[in-house]
Amino acid sequence: MSVANPPVDNGVNVEALLGARAALADTPDAAQFQWRATTTWVRGTHSQSSIETFYGFGEEQQHRTTFTHDADHPLLFASEDNGITPVEYVLVALGSCLTAGVAAIAQQRQIQLRSVSATIEAEMDIHGILGADPEVRNGFSGIRVSYQIDADANQADIEALLAQSQKRSAVYDIITNPTNVTVQVN
Amino acid sequence: MSVANPPVDNGVNVEALLGARAALADTPDAAQFQWRATTTWVRGTHSQSSIETFYGFGEEQQHRTTFTHDADHPLLFASEDNGITPVEYVLVALGSCLTAGVAAIAQQRQIQLRSVSATIEAEMDIHGILGADPEVRNGFSGIRVSYQIDADANQADIEALLAQSQKRSAVYDIITNPTNVTVQVN
Repeated sequence: MSVANPPVDNGVNVEALLGARAALADTPDAAQFQWRATTTWVRGTHSQSSIETFYGFGEEQQHRTTFTHDADHPLLFASEDNGITPVEYVLVALGSCLTAGVAAIAQQRQIQLRSVSATIEAEMDIHGILGADPEVRNGFSGIRVSYQIDADANQADIEALLAQSQKRSAVYDIITNPTNVTVQVN
Repeated sequence: MSVANPPVDNGVNVEALLGARAALADTPDAAQFQWRATTTWVRGTHSQSSIETFYGFGEEQQHRTTFTHDADHPLLFASEDNGITPVEYVLVALGSCLTAGVAAIAQQRQIQLRSVSATIEAEMDIHGILGADPEVRNGFSGIRVSYQIDADANQADIEALLAQSQKRSAVYDIITNPTNVTVQVN
């Protein structure tokens, strides 16, 4: 007599996601999203960014609440360290995007996750942002993400999970490929 | 008799920044920074990213406190909206980086800022992340940043301020140019 396995539950509703994908195939306009933030200067290098609304599925949408995130530079840069630096927010974006992907894809592949964590490290030569050396770029010279994943799957399946998460990650794409940015004053 | 103008004060210690730039010219190793984050999966698409330490000026450094940021997907994606989405963190990074730059450069140019805010909007066709159309990229198709700046300066000087902030922005560089990212499982 076989013992039934408990259903895999990573907290992701894959049926809803697959349903959305199927529905969007017939309604291309509904897939056009706009994400938004408002950044307000506080003082010095300290700012607060608020995120409340976005556009998608053909209409205006709202988050459950208005989320606010402080950014600043560290004490060492003669700032007040009222929040993480802008570049650290890029690492939050990357780590959270890949990790959400791992959970969603694990659910779809019926892999039960027990724990997932990632350390993200990015190198930067600050001669760039200080304007001290025109040969040095302002951004990161590279980023390394290292995952620790405890799951009901072998190493090869876990590696495949992570590879698929990279392949579908919005933030991985944004960092590894160029995106056009226009900046203007009203 | 002339009336002395009050000193320009945007809360940025430009002397310290210029001193750092001068000091780093002679000690290239001190300019090699490493920024870090740790992302831990909570459940579903919800994760928490913690930022505490970094490396720079030749030694290990610490933020004043450990900063934690929640990310999630919205209710519409059958998630719980426990935080902003990973792609919205990219907008926070960009807005806060450009805004810190505006403040620092205004200080250096002796322009008193009264208020600075930016709205950041980014378009995305979610056929990409849903894997519904291989021709559609996962990331943003483009980003627009619009500033409202009230300062003791004319429009041309304000535009020049913003242009210089773009030129020296780490996050603007990261988004508009490719960066290498490696992802591995330990």
